This record gives sequence, structure tokens and C-alpha cells, in this order.
Amino acid sequence: MGSPHRTYEIRCPVHGFISLNDWEWSVISQPAFQRLRRIRQLAWTDYVYPGAMHTRFEHSLGVMQVATSLYDAICEKSAEILKTDLAYNKDGLGRDRQVVRFAALLHDVGHAPFSHASEELFPRRSGGKRYKHEDYSVAVIRSELRSAIEDHELNANYGLHAEDIATLVEGSARAKQLIFWRDLISGQLDADKMDYLLRDSYHAGVEYGKFDLRRILTTIRAISSRGGHPPRLGVSKGGWHAAEGLVLARYFMFTQVYFHKTRVAYDIHLRQALKELLPGKHFPEPTGTGLKSYLKWDDWKVVGLLANNKGGTHGDRLRTRDHYRQIYSTPEVPNKKDVELLQKVKSKLGNLVVAEAAAAKSWYETGLPDIPVVDDHNPEDVRPLSKHSNVVRGLKANNQVFLYVEPLKFDLAETKVREVTSNAGHK
Amino acid sequence: MGSPHRTYEIRCPVHGFISLNDWEWSVISQPAFQRLRRIRQLAWTDYVYPGAMHTRFEHSLGVMQVATSLYDAICEKSAEILKTDLAYNKDGLGRDRQVVRFAALLHDVGHAPFSHASEELFPRRSGGKRYKHEDYSVAVIRSELRSAIEDHELNANYGLHAEDIATLVEGSARAKQLIFWRDLISGQLDADKMDYLLRDSYHAGVEYGKFDLRRILTTIRAISSRGGHPPRLGVSKGGWHAAEGLVLARYFMFTQVYFHKTRVAYDIHLRQALKELLPGKHFPEPTGTGLKSYLKWDDWKVVGLLANNKGGTHGDRLRTRDHYRQIYSTPEVPNKKDVELLQKVKSKLGNLVVAEAAAAKSWYETGLPDIPVVDDHNPEDVRPLSKHSNVVRGLKANNQVFLYVEPLKFDLAETKVREVTSNAGHK
Amino acid sequence: MGSPHRTYEIRCPVHGFISLNDWEWSVISQPAFQRLRRIRQLAWTDYVYPGAMHTRFEHSLGVMQVATSLYDAICEKSAEILKTDLAYNKDGLGRDRQVVRFAALLHDVGHAPFSHASEELFPRRSGGKRYKHEDYSVAVIRSELRSAIEDHELNANYGLHAEDIATLVEGSARAKQLIFWRDLISGQLDADKMDYLLRDSYHAGVEYGKFDLRRILTTIRAISSRGGHPPRLGVSKGGWHAAEGLVLARYFMFTQVYFHKTRVAYDIHLRQALKELLPGKHFPEPTGTGLKSYLKWDDWKVVGLLANNKGGTHGDRLRTRDHYRQIYSTPEVPNKKDVELLQKVKSKLGNLVVAEAAAAKSWYETGLPDIPVVDDHNPEDVRPLSKHSNVVRGLKANNQVFLYVEPLKFDLAETKVREVTSNAGHK
Amino acid sequence: MGSPHRTYEIRCPVHGFISLNDWEWSVISQPAFQRLRRIRQLAWTDYVYPGAMHTRFEHSLGVMQVATSLYDAICEKSAEILKTDLAYNKDGLGRDRQVVRFAALLHDVGHAPFSHASEELFPRRSGGKRYKHEDYSVAVIRSELRSAIEDHELNANYGLHAEDIATLVEGSARAKQLIFWRDLISGQLDADKMDYLLRDSYHAGVEYGKFDLRRILTTIRAISSRGGHPPRLGVSKGGWHAAEGLVLARYFMFTQVYFHKTRVAYDIHLRQALKELLPGKHFPEPTGTGLKSYLKWDDWKVVGLLANNKGGTHGDRLRTRDHYRQIYSTPEVPNKKDVELLQKVKSKLGNLVVAEAAAAKSWYETGLPDIPVVDDHNPEDVRPLSKHSNVVRGLKANNQVFLYVEPLKFDLAETKVREVTSNAGHK
Repeated sequence: MGSPHRTYEIRCPVHGFISLNDWEWSVISQPAFQRLRRIRQLAWTDYVYPGAMHTRFEHSLGVMQVATSLYDAICEKSAEILKTDLAYNKDGLGRDRQVVRFAALLHDVGHAPFSHASEELFPRRSGGKRYKHEDYSVAVIRSELRSAIEDHELNANYGLHAEDIATLVEGSARAKQLIFWRDLISGQLDADKMDYLLRDSYHAGVEYGKFDLRRILTTIRAISSRGGHPPRLGVSKGGWHAAEGLVLARYFMFTQVYFHKTRVAYDIHLRQALKELLPGKHFPEPTGTGLKSYLKWDDWKVVGLLANNKGGTHGDRLRTRDHYRQIYSTPEVPNKKDVELLQKVKSKLGNLVVAEAAAAKSWYETGLPDIPVVDDHNPEDVRPLSKHSNVVRGLKANNQVFLYVEPLKFDLAETKVREVTSNAGHK
Repeated sequence: MGSPHRTYEIRCPVHGFISLNDWEWSVISQPAFQRLRRIRQLAWTDYVYPGAMHTRFEHSLGVMQVATSLYDAICEKSAEILKTDLAYNKDGLGRDRQVVRFAALLHDVGHAPFSHASEELFPRRSGGKRYKHEDYSVAVIRSELRSAIEDHELNANYGLHAEDIATLVEGSARAKQLIFWRDLISGQLDADKMDYLLRDSYHAGVEYGKFDLRRILTTIRAISSRGGHPPRLGVSKGGWHAAEGLVLARYFMFTQVYFHKTRVAYDIHLRQALKELLPGKHFPEPTGTGLKSYLKWDDWKVVGLLANNKGGTHGDRLRTRDHYRQIYSTPEVPNKKDVELLQKVKSKLGNLVVAEAAAAKSWYETGLPDIPVVDDHNPEDVRPLSKHSNVVRGLKANNQVFLYVEPLKFDLAETKVREVTSNAGHK
Repeated sequence: MGSPHRTYEIRCPVHGFISLNDWEWSVISQPAFQRLRRIRQLAWTDYVYPGAMHTRFEHSLGVMQVATSLYDAICEKSAEILKTDLAYNKDGLGRDRQVVRFAALLHDVGHAPFSHASEELFPRRSGGKRYKHEDYSVAVIRSELRSAIEDHELNANYGLHAEDIATLVEGSARAKQLIFWRDLISGQLDADKMDYLLRDSYHAGVEYGKFDLRRILTTIRAISSRGGHPPRLGVSKGGWHAAEGLVLARYFMFTQVYFHKTRVAYDIHLRQALKELLPGKHFPEPTGTGLKSYLKWDDWKVVGLLANNKGGTHGDRLRTRDHYRQIYSTPEVPNKKDVELLQKVKSKLGNLVVAEAAAAKSWYETGLPDIPVVDDHNPEDVRPLSKHSNVVRGLKANNQVFLYVEPLKFDLAETKVREVTSNAGHK
Repeated sequence: MGSPHRTYEIRCPVHGFISLNDWEWSVISQPAFQRLRRIRQLAWTDYVYPGAMHTRFEHSLGVMQVATSLYDAICEKSAEILKTDLAYNKDGLGRDRQVVRFAALLHDVGHAPFSHASEELFPRRSGGKRYKHEDYSVAVIRSELRSAIEDHELNANYGLHAEDIATLVEGSARAKQLIFWRDLISGQLDADKMDYLLRDSYHAGVEYGKFDLRRILTTIRAISSRGGHPPRLGVSKGGWHAAEGLVLARYFMFTQVYFHKTRVAYDIHLRQALKELLPGKHFPEPTGTGLKSYLKWDDWKVVGLLANNKGGTHGDRLRTRDHYRQIYSTPEVPNKKDVELLQKVKSKLGNLVVAEAAAAKSWYETGLPDIPVVDDHNPEDVRPLSKHSNVVRGLKANNQVFLYVEPLKFDLAETKVREVTSNAGHK
């Protein structure tokens, strides 16, 4: 019922129509991908922002779209570097465009129910290191989706292997060419971030994650290899404020949405409820039958169990929206005095504190590579964004700590906190 | 933990912040209302428009917001008529504003899982008439929510009864004053429609449902009683094109979203799957223990059962996105020849047709009262919108009929349909 | 200072960045094009909608952008027809894309000050037919812009002549291929209309002109020649509601913005004031020195003269916002009784009527070709949009007539009108 | 023709309808206010961002709207403080709401042609201090608009004097109550800034100036007097990130729009051209006949003179878009080495430098009072925003310096600059 050249258009509230070829359509039609329709992007965020009901399915299509726009922009603006530094010709660029689209589309295909919120329940490898959702994604690409990727008629034009896509998602690609594009999948300028900032803002109904994608598309560049650096992604000097805006959009979304005190509480309850539900208190491993049984876990299954009162007391809290109350939080960038005060509060509260959370995951971690900025008129002049931007330089890793108590104990706990903080001069 | 004068703000992507007083907050905190978070506004529409994941919870808040804006606009623009024709004074207007807010907030509180899609599974009364979702809404208001409505401290200012709200939702209010506002809850200019057109468009990512709400707010009017008509809602002459735009927005949303061929297929599968799941193949009655057990039914429960393969073949189709394919549809306004052709197609297809659907529910039914348009400079001049608008006059009731076949039988069926239609000159 | 391959990006609030090549940049840098920065798109509409200050310059860039998107969409969706019916190959499509971009960019380059409002002041040809702004556009293309078009280095790839562009704008192109694209410049599906509806809505701050451009881009088609028809533009059946939306957007913009009663009054005053200012009471002819002197006329020159009190009484009215008041208007589609009543009103008012205006220019003229709708699955099935759409069929030519009086005479005139209309049963 | 209670609605693309009472309508109908229709908000910014054609008229209405929203929000959220610290009762709040609306509406009524761009041409007082546009605004309020303000029927309810409004605009109000609201007119949280950031972004088509106005409206507070501070405006702790967003929006607009290198060049040309046009090379004083003749200067008059070639070589540059080219700029926050390098570049270029500009006017000047942040649960805890925000603390005054050369000398100058900068290690 149709030609391999047929195209499909899916309506996207953020990017307009997203166009897929028949090959991509057959991949997203696989049950392992359709499962993303049953995994909400921001878990229980709708308890705070009621509009935020969107799914990983919608996001994954969006990431493919943004990655393609970035890819095309780089091909247009940095054709010479792609040719010289990476030996690309037209056919190679056509082929890798398809690989990048698949990698962008599938990078989240291994997500656990409720996305990031349940990642602490991934099992550990024999070595002790915990699996990450990307490990599940590449496992799915290599098994469940292999045939849909490799056996489509259109693949006669390329001879792709599922492995090509998996290695790009992993970042372990050996090929010099492909690894260059890894930054589009995961990095300071990746399509994932660009899509989720815009999409999460859109459905939640906030302006915080909006940034100037159009300007980034006109100023993104390949930066040629030099000084030991392989070729990499960056922006031209004319785009550094747009890149700064991207960094700030992420900062604002973390503080206003992702680390919202009530949202964080629901993540806690979800993890605890899942422990009740999961045999062995963790998800199965991303291998063999483990993976098959992992893929049965999605939001539907979990909420069905919760509706059936199988989630323990935390499941009840989720169902009845009876969340722990945040009783205390440090500043986002606590100084030594703040940390001492936190300790005093904690010892005052004692076992009134039923949960503690930390914004360990910073929006601009010190250790991460900065965004390189290149002068179009002088390609030797490459400097990190933080050299240009006082604002980015001013950003610090978010080390905020949150303390929670039971709702019924809130008033009591509040009195105790006041005793500590009034002595300290301020809360 | 708080004063009765505390206010709450909830972020809404369509209307900005929605503000609730402590009384309203305590009502929406009831389990019977929180259940709306687990009922999606447009059922499985996300299978066609992936962004359309929004819930009745979000919509209900929006309806309250729009109803309030309309209420305030009418109070400002038609103060004299409210005073003269309806005997209102300032206190009465303040009190009924609160009643209207509650009625708008709660008019959907009795919705079944997946909203309208499952309404055919409501049981019948002893007289044979099928219950409607409004019957469940008023039952919930009168029982589950009675105490939250009546016992809040702020009610000392008004002495409201749950019954006041229920009768307004039912439209059976005896009080002359209150019934005037019924049109804001259900009518050609109701807040329900205004909210869902904007909200469904927003999350689906289409422009079709957008209309000029701002202009409607400046031109909505109370029209004084005359010629047997009690006072009623209308628009001033300067707003008739805005009212026309509202009518057209509804027309476009029906044809582009609500009656989308694939969407309609999922409604069919949902109903069939629910029949498998529901004891007795229908929902419990909205009375006593029936209501309690009805309220346990929400999207969570259903998808949990589907995830567990309890939904029969239709449940499987929903889970695996393997929907019936539309093989034929009449024009939206079929003429005699179209109806004959449909009969021919049906008899040709025979039992290949596994489902038939009809857009019986028109977006502007002939029987419904038209929107009255009044000349501000000459209040005697009141004419229905269709007298002004050729476009509205051109609209006909949508009597489109859709035929569905199994996916695997599509090619075969298509050949048969072509035989009929090619004889008929065109499809 | 730069390579011929350099590109330029201009920020557009409606379409994002608009990208120009060096050739196009050199054309828009010509004084004859820069003049469009000094011609406002909607004349004095800002007196009613203060945001509507935008210029023909911004619009012209937008038309080029939309025309390109439509061109590319057709090339993708209807490649076969372009090849078969129009003998196109890849090079020809590349070349004509550039021609279409230039034609779209330049179709308005001959506009008079304040755009359409002053077109009645164009002189008449010897034969008596009045010149149109397109006549000035092609004259400018053939003279002032010829060198910029023909002499750029990039033209070595195509060998274009200014004449090619002028004939496409005129619609007199002899080449079978190019004339096909004329509909993108002027027709029911032209880029001009699509841009102005969106742009005028945007700056004025209304929703009325918004339509689903994205859907039109996915459903626009070339329809192959048959039954005497040469190949032409249309939409696929899946897009007929989007085309309907485009038609309605135009309808709404005409009734709500373009024919706004006060806006129409300012058009009257402008024309009268220009008669004072123009030697011989009309613009120079679009030939030789006439054209040179015509191009000196722009909004700046006119407002400078008005600021200097050179515009007579109508110029004073413009400057002081002291416009004629509309005292009477017929319905948009007057019937026989309405016309009779208008006559009665006019004779009652006598010479109190200082101006009369008529919405002669309909938004969907009967004489114009309808938008063809083609069934993708059955390309023989081509029917006009009005066969599908009751709404479009319901639209009638707008024959509204407006009468104006002096502000100081308004009360007196109103009394007289009431006498007539109250006898007639209603106003 | 109408009652004093009539209201008027004007469409605003940023805030929707703006509603005016008959009194306000009569004030904006005065020629001195209508003149703002002929003064563009951002001067020649359309040469860089073609959509930015909007006027001070549109902006002034918007400022009134935002000021009113802020006023109402404060009255609701901080009723107690207004009552206790400022002795307000209901009538006083009603009266001062009207005063604040007028002050917001009129604060820009004295602007020179092309707004800020020409402010350096204001004359100096006898003492040597240059007049500012606010001096002209209050002069207009006290003379041209006095009668419209004082003599309207509605003023019988208040007994306002033009002087009340003028002193609020000046900030010299003696009354304790009124001065509190001055921050809404001019301050870190003023309505002026909030409107221009949103409006300039809108018409230019950028996202940079967007911030969370809705959140600011729910978190703005009156902070009660303490420690010598009179009562003042601030935000509650829950709004500090929204306030941070406002500060950053301003930062981005300055760097991306207001200090755009080409835009700055046109400001230079405008000032020089105006010197040619203005008798004595400066505007008349804001007193007596000086003010009358000042008000004749608007954009119309200037562009009319430029169209007539009266603006000298700089006028020609404006007309023909032949601007000076930026040859060099320091970083936004130059360090000592940057300043030394600038000196070297300048002495190398010698008199090739035809103009120098400096972003002296910082977007967050050190000297200005910071935005106070108050803890709603502990009103004693008031800290400046920069204590909370690392980002705001990271912002430095913009001391960027720009050097310009003639277009024809650009290549030569560029070679010279390269010589200096290559020695210095980087540009």
C-alpha cells in the first residue's frame, strides 16, 4: 500500500509539520518506538504546570527536526571545512544526514517510564556502574529496531547498519566523520536540548525556555581542527549572544520548572512507588529478555498499577496529589555559611526530614566543554563562550539542596526551622 | 496553614495565570476533581496530533477563566439591563459571579474516561433515555463536592448550596437571575466552547480553532427581554464578525481535528475495548454506590487494563496503533446522489465494512438558537447572526458518513469502491 | 568587499530570517527598491490599528520568501508533472526559481505613496485605460533595475534578462514554462496574498488574517493539463479546508481591517490631498523622465508636504486626524431593499454627504478562477473549491456602500437617517 | 456626540485591546499627543530590522496599560501596606490610579523626532545642563494638555491638576503617596521598560526582549518602609527569577538591537543631519514659543526635509542608506588591555575614523538602586536581586566603544586594523 518514496507529515506545535520518509515512518511504527507515546516527557510536572502532558514521542520527532536543520545549516555555512577536514563529498553528506536523523530520532528510545524521574532505578553493571537510559536506547536500536532500520528498500542507497546509529548515539563512533556530528545528539549545542527547552516551555505555558533558534541556525559553524582539537561545533562571533541565550534558557528552565519544589517531591514519590512495583526494586537489564521485559514498563503500566493501589504509600501520594512539602532549601549556589546553616536545620529537624534532594545536575557544569565561538573573518580566533559572556561566566553549578517533610508535620517543622534561621539572621 | 483569603495561581498556556481563591482551591483539591487530571480532553487524538495530550483538568480551569472574563465584560457593558431586567444589585452580581465560576469549573467533573469518546457507554434511565456526562457532573456536585462547596469559611459571605451550582449546570435553575448566565456554561457563546477551541488548537499545533476572544469580550452584551424573550446573551453589531469567526473556528476544528478519519477510528476501538472492560458493558449509574464506582474509571485505569491485554482485540488495536482504515466517506453535506452512492458502496463492500460512523453532531445545528446581534445605538434592533452573515448562512449541518475496513482488507475494499465510484462518474 | 557567494539574512517577524544571495542583495540595494522602505503597506491604517506601520519593503521580502517555499513545495510534490507537462529538468527548475524570486521581490516595486490608497491618481493611457501599479513595477524593472539584475556575476550561471522578470510580473510571458508560475505572483494562491494576510494581521494585532500556511505548503500541487486547461496551481483534496481557510482569512481582513469605516475615510482624504500636491492632479506616467519623477514620490515626500500645510483641507484632516464620519453603510451584500433604502438615505441627506465609497473590490470575485482541488489518488478528479465548500459558496461579492459626512454635521445627519430608517422598519 | 462614560478600545498587538475612558480619549486626541504617531520608537532601526516601524503613540498606550496592570496587582497583593504605610483608602487608590494612568500615558509626550537618537541636540539650560525629553514632556503636560486634563467632566470626581501629573513624571512629587508610584513610571520595575522590551521585540521580530510579565504581575509587591527606606516597589521571593529575566531581557535587547553596529551608525547620521536642519543646531527650549515650535518637529517634518535634500551629506546617507561602516569595536566590558588596544587602533587609523560611539548608557548601572526582593513569609527579609542572582551580579556596565569609517575606506582601514590586532594576538 504505497511506494518507498512516500512521505509523511506530522503536525508539531513547536516546529510545524515534521516530514518523515517511508523508512523513518516504518521505524517509528515499531512497538518499541510507539512506546514513547506512553512516556511523558516531564513525568508529573503537570501537577504543577497542568499543560505539561507531552510525551517523548513528540519530543523525539522534534529532535530529529532540529538536528536536521542544524545539519543542513552547517553543510551550507561550513562546506569547506567538511570537505577539507572531514573528507566529505556530496554523497557522504547525504548518507550521514540520514544517520544523524535516525540517531536524533532514536536517542531517547530507551527511556524508562516518566523519563528521567525514574533513572535511579536502573540496575548496576557487574562493575557497579549504573546503566543509563542511553544504554537502553542503543540496546533497542541494536535489537528491536535493527530490522526496520536495515531492511527497508531505501537502505539500498546507503547500506546502513543499526550499529552505525547506535555508535553515534553512544558517542563511541570510530569513524572520524560521524563523530563530528555527535555534538548534535549530545553536547552544548545539541538538538535534544534545543527541542526540549522550546517544547517544555510551550506546553507548560512559560517563556523561560525560549531562545533564538533561528539565529543559532544562521550562526552555527564547523570549526576546523587545530591545536590537537578535532573539528567540532561552534558558533560564529555574530551568534555568541544567541548561544548565551540558549545557556540562559536552560538555566531558567532548571530553576523555574525542572527544580520546582513540588515537582521534585513527585519525583521522590515516583521513585519510591516504583520500588514497590519493580521486582527486585530496579528495572531489568538492557540485554536479552531483560530488555523485552523492560520495554513493557511504560507510564500506562505504572499508572494502571497505581490506580489499583499497588504503589504503596508513595503510590497513594501520587494518586491523591498528597506530596511531601518542601520545608527548607539552600540558595542555588550555597556558600560555606549556607551549608553550615543547612546542617543546623537538618539536625534540628531530625527525622522530621523524610526526604532530601539535590540539584546535583548543573545546567552548565564546569567540567563540560564550553561552546566555542569563532570569528568568521579570522578562523584562527576561537574562544570559549565564557570568555565573551560575563553572564555565562557568572553562572555557577547549581548545588541547591531541598529538605522535605510530611504535609501534616509542616507547621511543626516550620517552627523549628524558624528557630534556627532567626538565630542565623535570616532564613 | 493559611488564611481563607489566600489566592493561588496556576499557569495556563492559553490564558496565562489562572487565579483561584482558597475556596475554589479546596474544591479542585477534592479527589473527584483531581480525577480530571487523569482524563484526556481529546482521547486518542495524540495518535494523529501528537501534542494533543491535554486533560479535562486544564480545560476546566480555562472554562472558569473565560466564563469570568465574559461575566465581567457583561457586567461592565450591560450594567443597566442587569439592573433593570434582572433586578441585580452589586451584592447579587458578586455572589452570582462566584456561582458562575463554580459552575464553569465543575460542568465537566462527571466526564467518563477519554471524554466524549466513551459517552455511548452511559447506561439508560428506566425511561430509556441515556444518561449524559452532565448528569454525572451534577451528581458529583451534589454528593462528592457538596461539603467542599458548602462548608468553606468564605461561604459565610454567600450561603451557597451545591444545589445552586448543580441547577445552573443542568439549566433547570428556577431563579430568573441565574438562568440568564446559563448561556455562559452551555450555549452558542459559552465559555466551554471558547476554551476548548483555543486550547485544542494550541496543544494540537493548529491555527484552526483560533478566534478573536478579545473582540468578543468587548462586544458581548446582555440583550433585554422583549417579545416574549427573556434577557439573553448576544453581541453588539460591531462584534458580529468576531461571532462569525467563533462559529467558523468550530467548523474548522470539527472538520480538521474532531472528525479526522483516523481519530474517529480510535473512538470506535475505544468504545469496543471499554465494552470488554466494563461489567455489563456500560458505566455504572450516577447514583449512590454507582457514582462512587463510576469515579474509579479514569484514563489510568483503562490504559492499565489495556497494558495488561484486557481490552480484547480493540484494546490491542489501541495499544499497537493498528486502527481500522477509512475506506469511504461522503461529503460533509451529502446530497441525495451522495446518499445513494453511499448505499451502493455499502452494498458492494458488504461485510468488509467493520464500522460506520456519522458526524451526526453538527457544529451549528439548525435547531439551536442563533447568536443574537444587537445594535448598540438601537437596542430594539436584534437580529440573528445568520441574518448578517452569508458565511454562517452557508454552513450546513455536517452529515458526513464514514466507512471503515480492516487494515489488511484495505486494498481489496479499495478496488471494490473504485468499481462503484468510477461508474458513478467520480468518487 | 565580498564574494558573489556571500549570503545575507534579514530578520522578519512573520517568517523568521529571510535569506538573500549577493545578487538579490544588490538589487534591493538600488534606490528604486529602497524607496519601498518609505511606502507604508496599509497607508493610514495606523490611525485605527496603531501597530500597522509596516512597509512595502518588509512585505516584498516576505513575498519572495513565501513564493520560494511554495515553489520548492511544488517541485517536491509535483516533480513528475513539471517534468512531463512543462519539460522541466533540474537546471531549468534552478533557473526559474531565481526568476520567481525576483518577480516576487519586485512585483510591488512600482507602488505609489501609501500603496493602494492613491492608485486612483494614476494617469490614463492614451487609450483611456488607467495605469496600474504593476505597470510602474515592470517599468522600474526594465529601467532602473535592469543593470543590477543583468550585470551581477551570478547571472553568468543563467543569463537572465530584466525582461524575463517583467513579463512574469505582467503575466504576458510567452514561455510555457514560466507562465505556470504566474499564479505564485498573482492568483488565488499567490504569495502576495499569503504574505499580506499574515503580515497585516501581525502588525495590526489581529487574528483575522491567519491561515494554515504550513498545510498549504504540504498540499499545494501542480495540476496537469487537461481539457484545454494548461497546467496550473491547485491543492490536493487533503488541503481543501486549508484553502478554504485562506479564502476566509481574506474575507475577514477585508471586513475587519481593509474596509474599516475610519480607514476608508482616510483613503478619501489622502486622495484629495494628493490631488492638491500632484501637478496636474495625477502621478507622472511610467515612462522615461515621468518614471524618474514618479519615483521621487514616496510617503516621506508627501508627509513632508503635509507637515508644511501644502495638502489643502484634506491634508489638514489627515494631519489633525479630523476625518469624515461614516453616517451610513449598507450591508456587505445589499439586496434590492437595501439599495432602495440607500437611495432614500442619500436623497434625504442631500449634500450633507461629502463622500461615498464602495467596496467594489471583492475578496473572491465571481469572475475569477476558483481554486482547483485535485484528488491525489485520482488526478483526473479536479473540482473547484466552491464545489467542496459550502462556506466558500456562501461568500458573495462585497458590494457595501459607505456614506460620509463632516464631523460637525454628524448629529444633524444622524437625525435625518433615523427618520428614513425608522420608517423602513430598521436601520 | 456621546456621554462622558463612553469607553474606547484600541487594538494593541502586544497587550490586546487597550481601553480608554472618555477623559483619556480627549487627552490623546490633542495635537500634542497625536504628534507621537509621527515619532518612531526606534528611529532608523528598520534599516536593520525592517519590521521595527512602530511609534511612540503605540508605546505610550502600552505603558499606560502595563502601569495599570502593575498598579492593580499591587493594590491586590499589598493592600495592607498601602493602607498602613501610605494612608490610602479606596477613594485615594481610585484617584491615584487615574493619575498613574495619565503619567504613564504622557511620560514620553515630549520626545524629539526619532526618539532618543536626537536627544543630544537638546539645548542647555543657562546653568549648562542639557534638557532631557522628560523636561519637554512635563512642559507639554503643563501647557498644551492642561485644559484637556483639567476641564473634562469626569475630573469633577477628582479635581486633578495637570501639575499632579507633571510632578509624578518629574519625580518631584511632594506627596508621600504619589511618589511611591513613581517607580512604575521610571525605575527598575517601570512600565516603560516592560512595554518597550516586549513591543520592540515584537515588531523587530526577535525573542530577546521577552520576559515573564505575567509572573511579575503576580509577584510585584509594595515593600513597607523600614530602616530609613520609604515604601517602595519590589518583588516577592517567588518572583526573583522573573525579575532576573526582566534584567536579562534588557541586556539582550541592548546588545542585539539597540547597540547594533549599523543602527548606531544611523543615529550618528541622524544627529548630524539634524544639526543641518535645526536653526542654531539644536532644538528650541521647552518654554513658551520655544515649546510651540519644538512640537512642530516630528519625523514627518524631518523626512520631508531629507527628501528635499536639505540634510547635508549625512541626510543623503540616511536617504540612500549609505552608512558609515563599523571598523572596530571593543568587547562590551573592556579590560585594561582592551582599552590599550583601542588606543593603538585609533592612532593607527588616524583621521580615517570619522565617528566614535560608546555604549555609555548601561542596561543595569551600578549606581541605580537594585530590585528589592522580599520574602512573603518574612517581610523583614528584603534583599537586592543581585544577592540572589549570580547572573545579575555577573552583569557589568557596557562600556563598549565603536569606531566607524567611510564605506569606501573600509578595506584600507581593515588592513590597518589587522596590522595592529595581529601583533596583539587577536582582534
